[in-house]
Amino acid sequence: MTAQVQIPEPTKKRLLQLHELLKTYREEKITSLDIQKLTGWKDTLIRHDFWLAGFEKGVSNGYFTNQLKDEIALKLELKNSESEVFRNFCIVGLGRLGAALLDEGLFGQSQFKIKAGFDANLYRVEILRSTFPLYPASEMEFVIKKEKIEYAVLTVETKMAQQMAEKLVKAGIKGIVNMTNTVLAVPQSVKVENVSILNALNMVI
Amino acid sequence: MTAQVQIPEPTKKRLLQLHELLKTYREEKITSLDIQKLTGWKDTLIRHDFWLAGFEKGVSNGYFTNQLKDEIALKLELKNSESEVFRNFCIVGLGRLGAALLDEGLFGQSQFKIKAGFDANLYRVEILRSTFPLYPASEMEFVIKKEKIEYAVLTVETKMAQQMAEKLVKAGIKGIVNMTNTVLAVPQSVKVENVSILNALNMVI
Repeated sequence: MTAQVQIPEPTKKRLLQLHELLKTYREEKITSLDIQKLTGWKDTLIRHDFWLAGFEKGVSNGYFTNQLKDEIALKLELKNSESEVFRNFCIVGLGRLGAALLDEGLFGQSQFKIKAGFDANLYRVEILRSTFPLYPASEMEFVIKKEKIEYAVLTVETKMAQQMAEKLVKAGIKGIVNMTNTVLAVPQSVKVENVSILNALNMVI
Repeated sequence: MTAQVQIPEPTKKRLLQLHELLKTYREEKITSLDIQKLTGWKDTLIRHDFWLAGFEKGVSNGYFTNQLKDEIALKLELKNSESEVFRNFCIVGLGRLGAALLDEGLFGQSQFKIKAGFDANLYRVEILRSTFPLYPASEMEFVIKKEKIEYAVLTVETKMAQQMAEKLVKAGIKGIVNMTNTVLAVPQSVKVENVSILNALNMVI
């Protein structure tokens, strides 16, 4: 959708977080000042985000909570977990960090569904317990196509990151959440979001 | 430092990643086109980032690799792991994700040093093995002050996130890496970087 592409990344990120927040917000209406109080973002910034996203102007006494939530979901193409149409993803790299994601329940209420885990180490693939199948990295391309997996969370060692990213691209993956410290070189058509903890620490100093 | 504050967040993020990349880059010089090839960022964007950061203009045949690396480190106040002056941080929440960070070696070569782990669950604190001490959450304020901890990685359950963030703020923490899906409301003086995997997945759709 062209409309989505035009929203700047920082705005998109704030809207995603706001959407999460609105899920548990109990009041019928919410003002940009209420949002400022809950998030620390300036009310002018919030109103600017809404303008960038093309939302209808709020009335002077705020936005209707549910309407705002739905508008964000529509704009960012978020699917409802009840819609039964999931976005499939896989985890690549089952070291301590990757293994910690296997049954975190992190994705239970979301539009995302883990369909597979991969690791180059056959022992890990065999010994780890998981509610979905684990495969050797050599089967990646085959499984990704068969299971219609579109997204991947990359948690391999730094030195393996680029190589695995290339395998994912070759398999037709659309987006990669990169948890390694490596900068991935991938074609423009593949989206990458970096969530390295080390980089994040560097961002808060 | 005021100079740092003026660099926009996306630029800062790219510079951090570039710094990581330059550590293992073997050529004496690097051009913005080389960087484009390695990262996928447009060369014009890279040169604009350098301009925003106030770097000296590269000559027509590129930047000196080491000089560029040092300039980034200086601008972003990155300390060398050999400088023996570390930035201390702690992990708050020792569930599967937090526990996975305990001995990841993720921070071994960096300017950051884990000084403590905290969890409200006493059993976890006692049973987990770690190279640094683990404490009950009730001792957080005392330990953070005593150990001169300035940063925290937050990996607690969603419903505990805001409450723990407030304890961290009270203890005098300067920056929080937030791995929960919650939007944290903290004073403007405390920096927050969100690295929720779920939000990251939403960013790559």
